[in-house]
Amino acid sequence: MPVQTFNPDRELLIAALQALRPPVLILTRPEELKPYECDGLSAYRRLPLVVVLPETIEQVQAILQICHTQKVPVVARGAGTGLSGGALPHEQGVLLSLAKFTKILDINPKRRTATVQPGVRNLAITQAVDHLGLYYAPDPSSQIACTIGGNVAENSGGVHCLKYGLTVHNILQIKLVTIEGELLTIGSHSLDSPGYDLLALMTGSEGMLGVIVEVTVKLLPKPERVQVLLAAFDDVIKAGAAVGAIISAGIIPAGLEMMDGPAIQAAEAFAQAGYPTEAAAILLCELDGTHAEVSEQLLRVHEILIKSAATEVRTAKDAQERAILWKGRKSAFPAVGRISPDYYCMDGTIPRKHLPQVLQAIHEFSQEFELAVANVFHAGDGNLHPLILFDANQPGQLERAEAFGGKILELCVAVGGTITGEHGVGMEKINQMCAQFNRLELTQFHAVKAAFDPEGLLNPGKAVPTLQRCAEFGALHVHQGQLPHADLERF
Amino acid sequence: MPVQTFNPDRELLIAALQALRPPVLILTRPEELKPYECDGLSAYRRLPLVVVLPETIEQVQAILQICHTQKVPVVARGAGTGLSGGALPHEQGVLLSLAKFTKILDINPKRRTATVQPGVRNLAITQAVDHLGLYYAPDPSSQIACTIGGNVAENSGGVHCLKYGLTVHNILQIKLVTIEGELLTIGSHSLDSPGYDLLALMTGSEGMLGVIVEVTVKLLPKPERVQVLLAAFDDVIKAGAAVGAIISAGIIPAGLEMMDGPAIQAAEAFAQAGYPTEAAAILLCELDGTHAEVSEQLLRVHEILIKSAATEVRTAKDAQERAILWKGRKSAFPAVGRISPDYYCMDGTIPRKHLPQVLQAIHEFSQEFELAVANVFHAGDGNLHPLILFDANQPGQLERAEAFGGKILELCVAVGGTITGEHGVGMEKINQMCAQFNRLELTQFHAVKAAFDPEGLLNPGKAVPTLQRCAEFGALHVHQGQLPHADLERF
Repeated sequence: MPVQTFNPDRELLIAALQALRPPVLILTRPEELKPYECDGLSAYRRLPLVVVLPETIEQVQAILQICHTQKVPVVARGAGTGLSGGALPHEQGVLLSLAKFTKILDINPKRRTATVQPGVRNLAITQAVDHLGLYYAPDPSSQIACTIGGNVAENSGGVHCLKYGLTVHNILQIKLVTIEGELLTIGSHSLDSPGYDLLALMTGSEGMLGVIVEVTVKLLPKPERVQVLLAAFDDVIKAGAAVGAIISAGIIPAGLEMMDGPAIQAAEAFAQAGYPTEAAAILLCELDGTHAEVSEQLLRVHEILIKSAATEVRTAKDAQERAILWKGRKSAFPAVGRISPDYYCMDGTIPRKHLPQVLQAIHEFSQEFELAVANVFHAGDGNLHPLILFDANQPGQLERAEAFGGKILELCVAVGGTITGEHGVGMEKINQMCAQFNRLELTQFHAVKAAFDPEGLLNPGKAVPTLQRCAEFGALHVHQGQLPHADLERF
Repeated sequence: MPVQTFNPDRELLIAALQALRPPVLILTRPEELKPYECDGLSAYRRLPLVVVLPETIEQVQAILQICHTQKVPVVARGAGTGLSGGALPHEQGVLLSLAKFTKILDINPKRRTATVQPGVRNLAITQAVDHLGLYYAPDPSSQIACTIGGNVAENSGGVHCLKYGLTVHNILQIKLVTIEGELLTIGSHSLDSPGYDLLALMTGSEGMLGVIVEVTVKLLPKPERVQVLLAAFDDVIKAGAAVGAIISAGIIPAGLEMMDGPAIQAAEAFAQAGYPTEAAAILLCELDGTHAEVSEQLLRVHEILIKSAATEVRTAKDAQERAILWKGRKSAFPAVGRISPDYYCMDGTIPRKHLPQVLQAIHEFSQEFELAVANVFHAGDGNLHPLILFDANQPGQLERAEAFGGKILELCVAVGGTITGEHGVGMEKINQMCAQFNRLELTQFHAVKAAFDPEGLLNPGKAVPTLQRCAEFGALHVHQGQLPHADLERF
């Protein structure tokens, strides 16, 4: 599959879109396009030819039919909170915003499902079913803003995915529109569905296979009791080992998060969560379930933490204290943004047992590259978010940060992990995919892509690199954490 | 995609297989082929051209290369315990048995994974890690015989899948050989993997996309405590409602099984499990977890069962009593085989909330078709196994059984369920797929198939019907539960 070029006729495209009845909102002026120039990964910016904001499935079908006929690339976009550039527009393409798809279509407390449009915010689902004692489990940090369509496209996780799984484990059915404008329903309301598992295939496919126009999610009953423990350590390695000890004891906490010294200090300065700022690492461990279950687990986790040489173990006294402990963790990214002019957020995943050695290696890389790093982890599932601190205005720092990030991802692959935990590949990690997968595996990915979108019109240049790209970058393997801007031109 | 015909040169094929070095075991004489003529669905029987039993991945690659070059269909087979005819040989094809792939390659207690060859029996995995306090969760009834490769191909469930998920939720990585003979590794040892989710796509694909040659499974720590409750009811509808009440209370039992009167009586006569033979239905509810957790849940489930009008609730006193209670359930199929000359096992899935009404409808169908039915359900996840009793030697009974079965599946689809819970589509339900999916959805399935196997050499005629077949059968929708033998000729 060679690098593709697209040369649509902008006037013809706009005329066809304007001819749609009922009319669709179309944005074409530069100042209107500007808000769509990037997603949460602001390092990459591009303007699309046009932004369209349909309101109905029929309109999405009609728009995709036009794009298909005129060979125009299409990038679908939810709230644009993604961190890997997956919703970055294509200069020769349509940016298809699902922002108007905000209806909750059905709530079924007996089946414990909600059927919603893709532009419904993640947290809005939980809010809509709160009075029924239910909630939607996956909770990415951006849950107040990110939309369920984007969650499906990225297979989003969150603090609670350790116990409750990723998006793919929490959805039952989706409706999607193919590049040819056809409407497909995939999945079912039952445990398993015959035929190939297209629901799992679509989940996490980063907008490459179709446009999601409806999602049916599973809802869970709110746990009777929730408790949060905070444990402090004088050594990150000990904290990493404590994570392993909790999981090895057969306990699956609802969340098990880790922060190292720099992250603790930044978060505390920002959120006043009462974190022990002298600690080298803290763990936040959330337990949920029935009263008896939580009581028993609290005792056991407390014991394990003490045995793992925690210098302090604290239990939140009430819901308010619990919320404050989590607030520190959830604001870690903006908090780090306050102490460093720039930071580069990594998203690797490793088998949990390698946590201590990977932490040690990151510490050594930090000295080698002379850049500070703040570590915030979904420790329970081995998903690392090292934040590399740098100042882009200081010559050489950006390059060192990229090299540092590349080393971390290389290490993740080397210990049997992956280059992304939950942020997706998007634009950001397209080169690292060449390290993660070999020629045969990438060829199979391209064949699957072609089964949905043979002309490569959906989100071109994202998620799965061409073999040509890997051939050029291949000798370098995982050599950098971010794609230089100049490279963007080639897609 | 038209119906395919294959006309390989048998002598040429055998010569190529015989030329392989090191030599591969090849069976060609009719008496050698005979044991492979069917799988667990014995209604369908066919001899392949040749059976091959490779021992290494390289041999599987070489065999598939030969088949690819000579355009020979290939049907992969594990233990042949499948119940939908998925491993039925192709008359013009190679039957590729993975029976020699029985090595456990790696057990990693820290990561809690086992890497095994596909011919390793499901139960053998648990036995191999038992001393480590670990087990492999999915437990199909055939677990003593069925192999993990077949489990992946069918996405097998079992009694415990209510709490611990299907095969797809319990595997991390597989190696597969494509029809072109290429070896792919898909999935990873981490929570999520970048790229399209080919692991989920392969799981349950019924041998249509590739041949599985290695599987890495997740292992779970054995629960501290296991308890089983038996509840009797004087009415199946009440038992169905009790299932809903338990789940609605936020309890997820490790297993929640239901049997109706005829099934209870047959099982009791066979296994002497001490079942109340006068009951109209029983529920078996297994709870597992820590001591405190199980104690609390036992109390709550007991209370719910009494409130749901159970006439009797019993708790197994010890492991032996627990084993006996389960023995009755696990032997229900052979037990029914003793009381009826023939039976037809259905495998539909419905949203749990429709359980009472579907039970009522099955009861009415039973009167309409004048055939007894014994119902054995994975009630917790809405997976029904009605066993329709008939005598094939009595004129008209087979046809009535098929019509009865068709009505049940039609009802499953009508209430939002699916035509298969865990037995797969195989040969058996290929027509019902036309009722489950529309033209667009089937076309997308065929496109995905073509991305792996463009010439349709892998397991032709199974799992996903051609559009031509559906066009012919389409007007009838779900019209019968089993494919007449005459139809076999057309594949």
